[in-house]
Amino acid sequence: MERKKLAVLGAGSWGTALSIVLADNGHDVTIWARREAQAREMNEEKTNEHYLSDIRLPDNITVTNRLHQAVEGCDALLISVPTSSIRETVQLLAQSDVHIPLVIHATKGIEPDTLLRISEMMEEENVYNFTSDVVALSGPSHAEEVARRQPTTVTVSSLSREACDRAQVLFMNEKFRVYTSQDIVGVELGGSLKNVMALGVGLTEGLGYGDNARAAIMTRGLAEMTRLGTKLGADPLTFAGLSGLGDLIVTCTSEHSRNWRAGYQLGQGIPLTEVLEQMGMVVEGVKTTQAVAQLAKKEGIEVPITMAIYDVLFNGQSPLQAAEYLMGRVRKHEAEQLNFTKVQKKD
Amino acid sequence: MERKKLAVLGAGSWGTALSIVLADNGHDVTIWARREAQAREMNEEKTNEHYLSDIRLPDNITVTNRLHQAVEGCDALLISVPTSSIRETVQLLAQSDVHIPLVIHATKGIEPDTLLRISEMMEEENVYNFTSDVVALSGPSHAEEVARRQPTTVTVSSLSREACDRAQVLFMNEKFRVYTSQDIVGVELGGSLKNVMALGVGLTEGLGYGDNARAAIMTRGLAEMTRLGTKLGADPLTFAGLSGLGDLIVTCTSEHSRNWRAGYQLGQGIPLTEVLEQMGMVVEGVKTTQAVAQLAKKEGIEVPITMAIYDVLFNGQSPLQAAEYLMGRVRKHEAEQLNFTKVQKKD
Repeated sequence: MERKKLAVLGAGSWGTALSIVLADNGHDVTIWARREAQAREMNEEKTNEHYLSDIRLPDNITVTNRLHQAVEGCDALLISVPTSSIRETVQLLAQSDVHIPLVIHATKGIEPDTLLRISEMMEEENVYNFTSDVVALSGPSHAEEVARRQPTTVTVSSLSREACDRAQVLFMNEKFRVYTSQDIVGVELGGSLKNVMALGVGLTEGLGYGDNARAAIMTRGLAEMTRLGTKLGADPLTFAGLSGLGDLIVTCTSEHSRNWRAGYQLGQGIPLTEVLEQMGMVVEGVKTTQAVAQLAKKEGIEVPITMAIYDVLFNGQSPLQAAEYLMGRVRKHEAEQLNFTKVQKKD
Repeated sequence: MERKKLAVLGAGSWGTALSIVLADNGHDVTIWARREAQAREMNEEKTNEHYLSDIRLPDNITVTNRLHQAVEGCDALLISVPTSSIRETVQLLAQSDVHIPLVIHATKGIEPDTLLRISEMMEEENVYNFTSDVVALSGPSHAEEVARRQPTTVTVSSLSREACDRAQVLFMNEKFRVYTSQDIVGVELGGSLKNVMALGVGLTEGLGYGDNARAAIMTRGLAEMTRLGTKLGADPLTFAGLSGLGDLIVTCTSEHSRNWRAGYQLGQGIPLTEVLEQMGMVVEGVKTTQAVAQLAKKEGIEVPITMAIYDVLFNGQSPLQAAEYLMGRVRKHEAEQLNFTKVQKKD
């Protein structure tokens, strides 16, 4: 494979894990870390202790806290920063005069108020540096497992088939399998909406509910995600694939998941502010819940699971009442399935 | 609620747990246990130590090893015996001259060679004792959690809407929520086919694969289940509901699951005969794998995941090769999704 010069913006667990995949494939990777101390640790110690403990970074990864140094002359760029930092990061890029042949992002979220997906925000802030459509990378993939080279599958998605293919070639290897999809709306929404469901499942488990309840809420949750996503233009089958159901499963059934853990602690009665403080990393599902509530209202779609979680996060609802409501809501399942059939047939 | 006389055939963990639900609803329940020692333990000690440890049976459950005594004059009958005992049990019933107004089964499997579902076997062996269509009860429900009154949801399904409604009323309570479906083909197949997938997921986890791999195989597994089930006349949306996706999740992501545990031990290199011996309970997925392989061949449907598991169980294939094949198969996902779309649109 041709050795490329690649830039990665964001040195959290996911940006670092994906950099390891790219480095394993023989590319030269430069990570941009905002904080100088972290850049120094990663360069000198070859570790990223806070985000990915016990992992040694390959030698073909270098880290800098200067954005321009990371992106200058790169063949492709991966952005993996929190949703709330996407605009600022892309604005910084716009100040440079680099032209980037391929831009991929691996961020899962929806911006509150504007209700834009990540690729939409990126294209709104910055068109002239990017010479192709933005590619979204998503799927069932805990960073910790990817960094340990455990078998993982993801989807890369873009309106441009050619951009998808180029991203696939960069990342694909024996342990990290990459598939392509042109339904970027469905892929981006699947990855974002499942974080809301993970908060809900974690919440019920924090209250002591068991595996039976978890499975029921996940089943209903996927139906809710599919219903909203289809209204927003996604292909409903995307939600049955890796970036929908696959990612929902991995996020709701593993303690690796930050969103699940945040929900779990809420269920145990710890207040939101304290939960977020203790986590020390961004919990995307919290702001995504806010955005999904706004989105559903605007589109006139019922999202009862999301609203129950919203009420716990922002309206002082007790987790126990919300959990009982979530289990009660499963009742309507059959009827809603029928509605969903109608929506599908209409399409 | 009217107090009814109910019979339950089968004193395993699931038959016992469902008897507890019925007893909690105020009914008089008589369980038929084949072995006299077990009947005596359950009657005298109010326990069922081998199948459901640490659970106390309510006083309105009695246990007998005489079938006739259990079923005589009953208002409804629940059958919860292994798939391989269904015919014999129903034949025993046929020798009595009781007439049973409502018959429900809670067994998940497909008979090898005849390739019949449980309700089909029951109706083949015995029509004159049953005065209504058979009802299947299925969904995401570990017996241990049901016995502990943890929140659970299930589906009851029958061609007869009225039989569904009557079964729903018997079981429904605050912790055990029951929904109805008239797609008994889809409900019975979902509950059976997911046991095959649980073997496969357990197998990869026994080999040390992580959560990312599990999610990928479950996603592909549901697509395979849906493809075969749709060919057999099920509504594809049933597989997206509680008795499909819901049950798949609970069976593949919990150590409560016997099928998952059997797969896990196979993945660790323990031979099948030894795994089954140690388990001390029936592992339905093993024979179901055989039946599904036959069914798929007969119907001309590709079931690569099932076949990989079949080869480990019956053809001496190594678990490692099978697991690598399973992860590799995810590659075809996108293409198969397209085929699935066509099938759906054609319907």
